[in-house]
Amino acid sequence: MQLGEVNTPALVADLTVFDTNVATMAARRPGLALRPHVKAFKSTALAQRLAEAGHTAFCCATVAEVEGMAAAGLGSDLLLANQVLETERLGALVVGGSARVTVAVDSLETIAAAATGGVAEVLIDVDVGMPRGGCAVANAGRLAEAAGAAGLEVRGVMGYEGHLMHVADTERRVSGVERSMAVLTEAHQAVGGDVVSGGGTGSWDCNQVVTELQAGSYVLMDTDYARLDLPFQQGLFVLATVISLGSGGHAVLDAGLKALAMDSGPPTLVGEGEVLYCADEHTVLVNGSWQVGDRVLLRPAHIDPTMAKHEKMYLATEVSAAGVVETEVVDSWPIDLRGW
Amino acid sequence: MQLGEVNTPALVADLTVFDTNVATMAARRPGLALRPHVKAFKSTALAQRLAEAGHTAFCCATVAEVEGMAAAGLGSDLLLANQVLETERLGALVVGGSARVTVAVDSLETIAAAATGGVAEVLIDVDVGMPRGGCAVANAGRLAEAAGAAGLEVRGVMGYEGHLMHVADTERRVSGVERSMAVLTEAHQAVGGDVVSGGGTGSWDCNQVVTELQAGSYVLMDTDYARLDLPFQQGLFVLATVISLGSGGHAVLDAGLKALAMDSGPPTLVGEGEVLYCADEHTVLVNGSWQVGDRVLLRPAHIDPTMAKHEKMYLATEVSAAGVVETEVVDSWPIDLRGW
Repeated sequence: MQLGEVNTPALVADLTVFDTNVATMAARRPGLALRPHVKAFKSTALAQRLAEAGHTAFCCATVAEVEGMAAAGLGSDLLLANQVLETERLGALVVGGSARVTVAVDSLETIAAAATGGVAEVLIDVDVGMPRGGCAVANAGRLAEAAGAAGLEVRGVMGYEGHLMHVADTERRVSGVERSMAVLTEAHQAVGGDVVSGGGTGSWDCNQVVTELQAGSYVLMDTDYARLDLPFQQGLFVLATVISLGSGGHAVLDAGLKALAMDSGPPTLVGEGEVLYCADEHTVLVNGSWQVGDRVLLRPAHIDPTMAKHEKMYLATEVSAAGVVETEVVDSWPIDLRGW
Repeated sequence: MQLGEVNTPALVADLTVFDTNVATMAARRPGLALRPHVKAFKSTALAQRLAEAGHTAFCCATVAEVEGMAAAGLGSDLLLANQVLETERLGALVVGGSARVTVAVDSLETIAAAATGGVAEVLIDVDVGMPRGGCAVANAGRLAEAAGAAGLEVRGVMGYEGHLMHVADTERRVSGVERSMAVLTEAHQAVGGDVVSGGGTGSWDCNQVVTELQAGSYVLMDTDYARLDLPFQQGLFVLATVISLGSGGHAVLDAGLKALAMDSGPPTLVGEGEVLYCADEHTVLVNGSWQVGDRVLLRPAHIDPTMAKHEKMYLATEVSAAGVVETEVVDSWPIDLRGW
């Protein structure tokens, strides 16, 4: 099958770019020094490729992601890097022996939930500057003691410097990550354990503290991360068809905001022309020249929620606007970790 | 089951509000004077309720929606109100007798696609002021002739005044709709046929031209439409759980932008407090008082893409922030028209 025969809208991943990005990261963060975050791509088939590249421990954002990874045989070391109160489904995986599951805790309530739900291992989640989950550094040691008293194994600490992940100014990003990781180091001294987990695609080479980096977006990237000076290339596209031409010169595509996440802005057109706006099932292009039936490629602004809108991604190599119709589809990966 | 026992994040619809909204619309637009747009809710179970209220002709935005409606036995009169080039799946429904399918056409290419794909009936889609699909009014008559020459039955015209749908100033909205519908009337005179299709929730009472109104959002509404002076009430919520409390006083919910569409802005919290921001799987609240484990309700800014993020919606009556935990779940409707 060629991309010209695929029903649109469709998600397309460039396998050459994927392999290059994975190799670039693995050279710096080999094996367990990377804990790929499956929330970025929500696909066990993609995760399997990362496991084959040596990264066999994974990071998840939802219980459904943990369950799906376990069911796919990728459960040797799964971290749910969020607070969770409904822990019974996680505990069932641990008791059933299908996965090793560690959860992030930042309060007595989440410690109690982990213990009663049957989750045996935790990380103490520490606030390193982003107003989201994570305890105050001053409380990290006390929470570790409480977790131990509840019968939980404390593997170490976690702290996600998400507020710095998309800072385009490298100097500001690097110095910010240093300050955040100084907080995490302090917490680690109080908590102990082997694991210091955190970071992401934006801090892949400047986070010198974490023992495991929680990066996921790097595999295929998006236009928001592309603003940074990272060596990873964009390899994710939404393939669309021109279905209408306006008398004013605009073109209408059959892919809209139900196929493309809009939280980080509209998508970017590959090739000549610009995106005017997106509606539910349409994207309108201007400043270019198109014919009805033309196939075009859009780059999403944010990979994670765009992946979550599709049931599968088609795989091709050397995907580009020129010749997109004749590009061979080499495989497809189900996006099977959606929902909660 | 009570809402306190539902795994979060979860979509919740207020059945009382739904029934009231449906009755309000049906009083003004009874039976076939309304062609409910399933893109707003993507659920055949919800559509079935509208059919029982007398609205048995439906509007769809994707081929998958048409197929799903036909499979659910709701195919007596389905309009695909978009241009489409891949018409084989639609033609198969017509040939198989499972649905009456009409498609919007606005070019010789889409006319040819309808004819070769086996779709027998079309509407001429006319640009009434929104830069999206639709031919110039001057070309409408010629396209109708071309459709007839291709063996297609031309049922009439369609023109969607979407650029006016969310104009909060009623006077501007009303006068804009009048101007747009004057264009559609001119096209109808050139094209003929019984059907003049268009409009939406925002023009439900001021569009005096269409024979059938394509409204969908009115059934449960969203905060973007709530800015207008419409009689329809908001009945759609995302139920979330407080999973973490920051030392700065913020609360973290387990529902984020993968559960809530962001194209029309962040969601609104029901009750005391405000939304600071949304991340993939989190929403952060400020200016309120919460405990870990609290359940809260968020109102989405845009109903259509929010529905598309969930597999089902739970139904309850008189949903409100106070007492949400004890609110009985009376049923759930699958959101079974997702994808393409």
